[in-house]
Amino acid sequence: MTHVVGELEHPGVEDLDLVEVLQALGDPVRLQIVRYLASVDGRIACHEIPIPVSKSTGSHHLKVLREAGVVRTDVEGTRKYPTLRRDDLDARFPGLLDSVLGA
Amino acid sequence: MTHVVGELEHPGVEDLDLVEVLQALGDPVRLQIVRYLASVDGRIACHEIPIPVSKSTGSHHLKVLREAGVVRTDVEGTRKYPTLRRDDLDARFPGLLDSVLGA
Repeated sequence: MTHVVGELEHPGVEDLDLVEVLQALGDPVRLQIVRYLASVDGRIACHEIPIPVSKSTGSHHLKVLREAGVVRTDVEGTRKYPTLRRDDLDARFPGLLDSVLGA
Repeated sequence: MTHVVGELEHPGVEDLDLVEVLQALGDPVRLQIVRYLASVDGRIACHEIPIPVSKSTGSHHLKVLREAGVVRTDVEGTRKYPTLRRDDLDARFPGLLDSVLGA
């Protein structure tokens, strides 16, 4: 499957850093985003994620998750579609995401 | 429930919070402390942990780890002996510590 990743940068799987990933996950709103993304089938837009913060704060949290490599954000036109980088995280830090999602 | 060990407070296992634990682990020096504690057999004193920071900075990091419930610190006289709360973390967040230590 081919993803168009507009103008947004994403770290390669080999560049994922454990401290950055833990910091990205160590926030209640970001954990909520990650859990929601893990729970949905198919593609959803950023604004469809139910989080109790403003649009700009939500965008900031998604940026932190993207820059840490937790989330991949595809851009199409003016819309952004974030997905969890589950395979990349599992490859780099086996068991980490499962333990966080299971907690 | 809070357990007092010497004069230091420790959260009970039921009060361990995932966000706090992730934040505590999401620091390079604290990860170094956790990895060192996981690697040693027997009791060691705080000042024996090899970390590249000042004594006061090291104490701060150990306090963050203790307050998050990652480390238990026993006090004897003027000495502090930290140990990893491996069983408590494994009980509350199965697989988390192993995935972090294995990364």
